[in-house]
Amino acid sequence: MSNAKIPYKIYLKEDELPKQWYNVRADMKKKPAPLLNPVTKKPVTAQELSSVFCEELVKQELDDITPYIDIPQEIIEFYKMYRPAPLIRAYCLEKKLGTPAKIYYKFEGNNTSGSHKLNSAIAQAYYAKKQGLKGVTTETGAGQWGTALSMACSYFDLDCQVYMVKVSYEQKPFRREVMRTYGASVTPSPSETTNVGRKILKQFPDTDGSLGCAISEAVESAQTQSGYRYVLGSVLSQVLLHQTVIGLETKTAMDKYNIKPDIIIGCAGGGSNLGGLISPFMGEKLRGEADYRFIAVEPASCPSLTRGKYVYDFCDTGQVCPLQKMYTLGSGFMPAANHAGGLRYHGMSSVLSELYDQGLMEAVSVEQTSVFAAAEQFARVEGILPAPESSHAIKVAIDEAMKCKETGEEKTILFGLTGTGYFDMYAYEKFHNGVMTDYIPSDDEINNALKNIPVME
Amino acid sequence: MSNAKIPYKIYLKEDELPKQWYNVRADMKKKPAPLLNPVTKKPVTAQELSSVFCEELVKQELDDITPYIDIPQEIIEFYKMYRPAPLIRAYCLEKKLGTPAKIYYKFEGNNTSGSHKLNSAIAQAYYAKKQGLKGVTTETGAGQWGTALSMACSYFDLDCQVYMVKVSYEQKPFRREVMRTYGASVTPSPSETTNVGRKILKQFPDTDGSLGCAISEAVESAQTQSGYRYVLGSVLSQVLLHQTVIGLETKTAMDKYNIKPDIIIGCAGGGSNLGGLISPFMGEKLRGEADYRFIAVEPASCPSLTRGKYVYDFCDTGQVCPLQKMYTLGSGFMPAANHAGGLRYHGMSSVLSELYDQGLMEAVSVEQTSVFAAAEQFARVEGILPAPESSHAIKVAIDEAMKCKETGEEKTILFGLTGTGYFDMYAYEKFHNGVMTDYIPSDDEINNALKNIPVME
Repeated sequence: MSNAKIPYKIYLKEDELPKQWYNVRADMKKKPAPLLNPVTKKPVTAQELSSVFCEELVKQELDDITPYIDIPQEIIEFYKMYRPAPLIRAYCLEKKLGTPAKIYYKFEGNNTSGSHKLNSAIAQAYYAKKQGLKGVTTETGAGQWGTALSMACSYFDLDCQVYMVKVSYEQKPFRREVMRTYGASVTPSPSETTNVGRKILKQFPDTDGSLGCAISEAVESAQTQSGYRYVLGSVLSQVLLHQTVIGLETKTAMDKYNIKPDIIIGCAGGGSNLGGLISPFMGEKLRGEADYRFIAVEPASCPSLTRGKYVYDFCDTGQVCPLQKMYTLGSGFMPAANHAGGLRYHGMSSVLSELYDQGLMEAVSVEQTSVFAAAEQFARVEGILPAPESSHAIKVAIDEAMKCKETGEEKTILFGLTGTGYFDMYAYEKFHNGVMTDYIPSDDEINNALKNIPVME
Repeated sequence: MSNAKIPYKIYLKEDELPKQWYNVRADMKKKPAPLLNPVTKKPVTAQELSSVFCEELVKQELDDITPYIDIPQEIIEFYKMYRPAPLIRAYCLEKKLGTPAKIYYKFEGNNTSGSHKLNSAIAQAYYAKKQGLKGVTTETGAGQWGTALSMACSYFDLDCQVYMVKVSYEQKPFRREVMRTYGASVTPSPSETTNVGRKILKQFPDTDGSLGCAISEAVESAQTQSGYRYVLGSVLSQVLLHQTVIGLETKTAMDKYNIKPDIIIGCAGGGSNLGGLISPFMGEKLRGEADYRFIAVEPASCPSLTRGKYVYDFCDTGQVCPLQKMYTLGSGFMPAANHAGGLRYHGMSSVLSELYDQGLMEAVSVEQTSVFAAAEQFARVEGILPAPESSHAIKVAIDEAMKCKETGEEKTILFGLTGTGYFDMYAYEKFHNGVMTDYIPSDDEINNALKNIPVME
């Protein structure tokens, strides 16, 4: 092992950081369907989007032809605080599995937000600052995105208002305190600060809150305060664009050592990490320069790609955001209460949905006890304590490596390790105590949820 | 900033990892006083120590003449999982402070244990494995050391039994679960598993436990199980030795870029991180090759260097371990209940105590609200969320940088950032809510505690 030519961790130099994000839509012959105005059902205009989102981000959202977009120098400077992120050769895991496969993972957890979310948070905060805004609003569930955005806003001296799902605000106070450390104001949702919040509280005074409600509050709050816009941590094409810094760094590191992955694996909730990791490789595939297998891994309890429908749907439960064509379970779908981690969005990035629909990417769903078992196995040999979300990718990477053990194939497997699990120990505890359960929604449940999808002419 | 020749983060290559630890005692003309047998009051023999500690570690503990000790290849392989650790130039903090000082910090938090403790844990686990032991026992307070040891034991397939102070076991379940993830068994202390535990429980059925009691249980447990030894995370000279990997890497990185620190700052509890960071620099000072200012920073609520006595004292409350000459507040000293972080040991490493006594190192104590204020200021500009312990060093680094701002001096300041604060958000919450208080023990309190020190002829 000590004589291996490839180090445990490949760190690029700071001047090897990508200077441009890569927009995979530019290389797609059939583009993702346009966002629609929820009222007129016509493609949304830049002007319509600009009341909610920052102008530059609207441009990025709607641009499906420019392949490379410059990363502003200020963002690159911030990236230098925690990037380049290491590409790690999982020598210890390979040895433990006894597989001839070569396993690599791109680790995005070495920053205080604990995940890849910071890559887009800093970009969105930068454009908000550049536009002269006072601040931004957003929603957060468990708090990973809210933490990343708080850090980014603190750096640019922007006000950051986070609506945090009430039950998380109360039961997961630690991420809330990280956000406060970075100067964000965190409001439990539903709250008395918005019309929609007051309305819901009047109707359901004891509600725990939901992500859908928090989104509605954050959007209303941005639209009713002068100098504020709403920002979002996944699903949108602009977020995928920013996250390509993951894949671009990975590709540079692999090219340096002449490594070519056969299989690229990522967990998929809204799709930002997976899209960011695979984009540069998918670009090669789309241009016919190389071939790769791509595998999206989703929870069996929230299976948008594997059991959803590819149709126009609402992005939020409050149905105020544009309609997006995507694989979806319906905007009213909620994962069962025993679902421990993230990856609980009802839909999927329109870019990834289209790539999946064209057969350019595979998808599998896995059950959470097998995910936590893989997480623990990984932690014990590789040291890093993975987030439950990231562990979906670990589970499938191990599965693929074990197939190689059977066949003797020396495949090269790359997966994205999006973050750390320090704030997920309650779920780990359930797993250790043997009280974690699995849940696969029945066909009836899925079909019922799909009824929420709007009927389009 | 983008044109700066020195990058934000200096990462050494894996082949630049130290191959040997540096034993600063070899360069001390006046050596630290020997450990004494608590019964005979004579210097302990290797044989006496070997019933409690691993043989190779006993050798390291007693060796004050060999300057360099080879790091076994297996430990280097493990180090490669998370080392070399980055040396970071605090450009953003410098800019925020408006200081002409150049600030660097060595960041030891980028591993799952969240601190530098892993550097010694892996070494101690390795020697236990090499000796053919089945497992090791230890105690842990908040759980940082226990987590590091669990990771190390998992890697070498050693059983790891951790006695965790009961109140922490119940109130801080998350670190406990990290330990369980790595396969350790965690027992709340006092427990029914040892004589000393049963005795204490009979006398004080409702006790919250204490570190002193947990040590006694861990030592008893090691001595009554065949194939077990006891291991410790700080204070001992062997631990300082392993931790010199911090300072050696730092020195290599600084030499590469021709950086010479004027001031080197570290937080000091038992002294392992501070000793590890400063050792190679102190060696140069002892040999007359260079001069540096060294500053140990301790909490005002547990001021062993600044208000303790330099005498022989018990290392543990149970008084079963050897007597050590050190700066101490007496083995019965407990920091006030409002003390939030670690650094709560009543004494100080004998090596650092002797260096301090010879005037080769300075010490200051700081109050915790000022520490948390510095931590928050640092987090907002440098991104990293620091542990409360590490933030003691941040506080004094900022103070020194502000002095440079007044005088216009362009001093180079180096400090050790030992870990992250992800499991300390309860303390941050108190700080955010304005309910964190300071406490400086009165002279009477200190004098009372000092009465516990054994009278030596």
